[in-house]
Amino acid sequence: MFVVIGGGPAGRLGAMRLAQAGAEVRLIEQRKIGGQCLHERCMTICALNDVARLVEYARTQKDLGILDTVPAVSYPAIRRRICEVQEKLSSVLDAETRRAGVEVIYGAEGRLEGNRVYIDDEEVRADAVLAATGSRPAVPDIPGTSLSGVYTYRTLPAMPDLPRRMVIVGGGVVAAEFAHVFRAFGAEVEIVARHGLLGNLDPKVRAAALRDLSGIGIREQTPVASIEGAGRVRSVVLGDGEEIEADAVMLATGLVPRSESLQGLEKGPDGAVTVDSRMRTSVEGVYAAGDVIGPPYLTPAARREGVVAAENILGHETVMDYTGIPWAMSLRYDYAFATAGAGGLTLSAPAPAGPGSFWDVAGGWAGVAQIRVDPETGRIVGAAAGVPGASTLLSYIGYLMKRGVTVDDFDDIVEIHPSTDGIYPLARYAAGVLRKKNE
Amino acid sequence: MFVVIGGGPAGRLGAMRLAQAGAEVRLIEQRKIGGQCLHERCMTICALNDVARLVEYARTQKDLGILDTVPAVSYPAIRRRICEVQEKLSSVLDAETRRAGVEVIYGAEGRLEGNRVYIDDEEVRADAVLAATGSRPAVPDIPGTSLSGVYTYRTLPAMPDLPRRMVIVGGGVVAAEFAHVFRAFGAEVEIVARHGLLGNLDPKVRAAALRDLSGIGIREQTPVASIEGAGRVRSVVLGDGEEIEADAVMLATGLVPRSESLQGLEKGPDGAVTVDSRMRTSVEGVYAAGDVIGPPYLTPAARREGVVAAENILGHETVMDYTGIPWAMSLRYDYAFATAGAGGLTLSAPAPAGPGSFWDVAGGWAGVAQIRVDPETGRIVGAAAGVPGASTLLSYIGYLMKRGVTVDDFDDIVEIHPSTDGIYPLARYAAGVLRKKNE
Repeated sequence: MFVVIGGGPAGRLGAMRLAQAGAEVRLIEQRKIGGQCLHERCMTICALNDVARLVEYARTQKDLGILDTVPAVSYPAIRRRICEVQEKLSSVLDAETRRAGVEVIYGAEGRLEGNRVYIDDEEVRADAVLAATGSRPAVPDIPGTSLSGVYTYRTLPAMPDLPRRMVIVGGGVVAAEFAHVFRAFGAEVEIVARHGLLGNLDPKVRAAALRDLSGIGIREQTPVASIEGAGRVRSVVLGDGEEIEADAVMLATGLVPRSESLQGLEKGPDGAVTVDSRMRTSVEGVYAAGDVIGPPYLTPAARREGVVAAENILGHETVMDYTGIPWAMSLRYDYAFATAGAGGLTLSAPAPAGPGSFWDVAGGWAGVAQIRVDPETGRIVGAAAGVPGASTLLSYIGYLMKRGVTVDDFDDIVEIHPSTDGIYPLARYAAGVLRKKNE
Repeated sequence: MFVVIGGGPAGRLGAMRLAQAGAEVRLIEQRKIGGQCLHERCMTICALNDVARLVEYARTQKDLGILDTVPAVSYPAIRRRICEVQEKLSSVLDAETRRAGVEVIYGAEGRLEGNRVYIDDEEVRADAVLAATGSRPAVPDIPGTSLSGVYTYRTLPAMPDLPRRMVIVGGGVVAAEFAHVFRAFGAEVEIVARHGLLGNLDPKVRAAALRDLSGIGIREQTPVASIEGAGRVRSVVLGDGEEIEADAVMLATGLVPRSESLQGLEKGPDGAVTVDSRMRTSVEGVYAAGDVIGPPYLTPAARREGVVAAENILGHETVMDYTGIPWAMSLRYDYAFATAGAGGLTLSAPAPAGPGSFWDVAGGWAGVAQIRVDPETGRIVGAAAGVPGASTLLSYIGYLMKRGVTVDDFDDIVEIHPSTDGIYPLARYAAGVLRKKNE
């Protein structure tokens, strides 16, 4: 019998893989199946962003005289409806997991002490364990984080209505995504980032993303000293003493692995369980996957890690490969990225107008596409796009990159027109440049 | 010197390829560069659909209590703004074409008599000619097609305002796309199809597409006898004598190649210029590409044909390969398709909820994904999807199919989450099915 602790993407996929191979599997889930991905992160942003984009595009089309009005958003209705859909998707996942042959145990805590497994306080005998207990939002060590009106993505569903003025603390993807959504909904939003906002992006792609964040106050290189208020948040005090009024604060200051219940395993300084490329921990028979092993904190990576762990539990030697794993950020456009190597020649271009971006042409607004090419081999070692549909695009570009795609291979790609795919024309252009260079 | 007749996708891309190779090229364009694709077909549908989807999604979100209103559409503004954007894109294409070294001659007619080339009435000496004169909408041979208020996609830009009641004659993609748009804008729409509506689609994919057309009257196996009115259209009379009131009629009854100005070449019964796989016509030194050679009437195919013609003109033997060329239809969702072979095992599934379709889950509305798999080799020989972003997805699935992708190759695809890509889970499922079957 195998025990899987945690019903998020890593645990659930791992459990299903084990069950499909005919094994007896118990999946322990404290709350609901689907993990943070379904209940607080990916799907929540998807839900909010689907509304935010509609409102933003309506604004563009109203400015062009095409629409007569911009609809107003009821935040309480969004909140309620998101939960309904999440419940629905959760029951789909529950059914799918059980149908695969997994026994799902809700409301219990799975714990480890070395290779000893406990379900609540009862020890169970397991042939192997997969620990997939996920992560939680990091809360910075400043006064005021427990005031009412201070949220993380995890507690945000409790926010009763749209704030008038919101401060988002953080400089990463989550900060940018929520800022974009709440700005579109009509709140005044201020981002306060200790370092840079989206500082790890290439300057051209970052410039496009920042354009999507126009109308939002952005302070970089700015630490937060404290959050002030009596019971309820009233303001945020910055490192230089400036005070920003706010009736809601969102802390988007990163994630920490949730590994307190996993004792006797080797861990990193932030609590991330140490694993090898086959997802084996320091304890024989104990595997770990998903956010609890640390970055990249991406659902598809977690799913894959869960499957890799399951394969190895089943005795099929399988190694986790992070090459070309794509990731994305949802603003007005999708911004999506994949990397398969360092260095190379960077080429960027405005992306073509197409579905979702036709009316942006009127305002001189174009997406962006970028590739990094190894000039020796012609292989694409990095790609990014900020366009409608970039997430689907980069998933396949990432896959092709992993398979060693070269710029010459794009010669016979035939897209569906109109298309916002700026990658293939860029690759063809690069092929021409390299041909000239090598002549 | 080379002459290219027609500045649509085939002619323009062919001309640019020739010029990039250092040749002297004259491109003759009667009207504006970009062809029907930019001015009347692909980009027009993209523009209209971007508004239609917004209105439809607003309706869904209003029904859920999320938005307070559904914006109303000003059709005259859309019409005016589309032209502005098309002008802008046309000047971008003009600049790009000239920058590539092509001499563009506007307002003249290019004609052929065998291998003799005329620009208006002046004969010019050319080392080779590429004829890319495109197509025009077919007009059925019934009384009343020249009444005011009767349009094809070509004359539709002249329609001054949204009709109250519109009849669309035809059963293909164009009929479905325009019906969907005008219904979303608020018109009453009736489709009258001589045979079936979207009858060439797989039943499951067709069912999904028809759901996107709900609220539209659909009559199949119904010929139109005449269009009636005094000066202006008033009604459409069907084969069985029934009369349907209409203040606008759109004829979406196919395309015919526009080859009257190309004399002395072998042609098919509908006027399509006969070419071989290298785009050579029956006359030495004369090549043809794009809609004028007949189906598939797709921009990306036309572009590729133009490039293939250019390569052969330059003496680089290149063959046009139609394997896996994707195509699409834009309704509420994209419906996209690619084929690389016949037969096989068909597998379908509802597509996952993701960007653009999150709120459809509340109404029990899911996309569709489908693959056809050769059970011997595991190769994917057909794929279809009806989801947001299907066009980007199928462009790459089509490309992979052309390269012989098997269901096992999808094992290590890592998508960006959430994703509406229903193809990769289906391929993985199929891999499992085939493994069991072969055990």
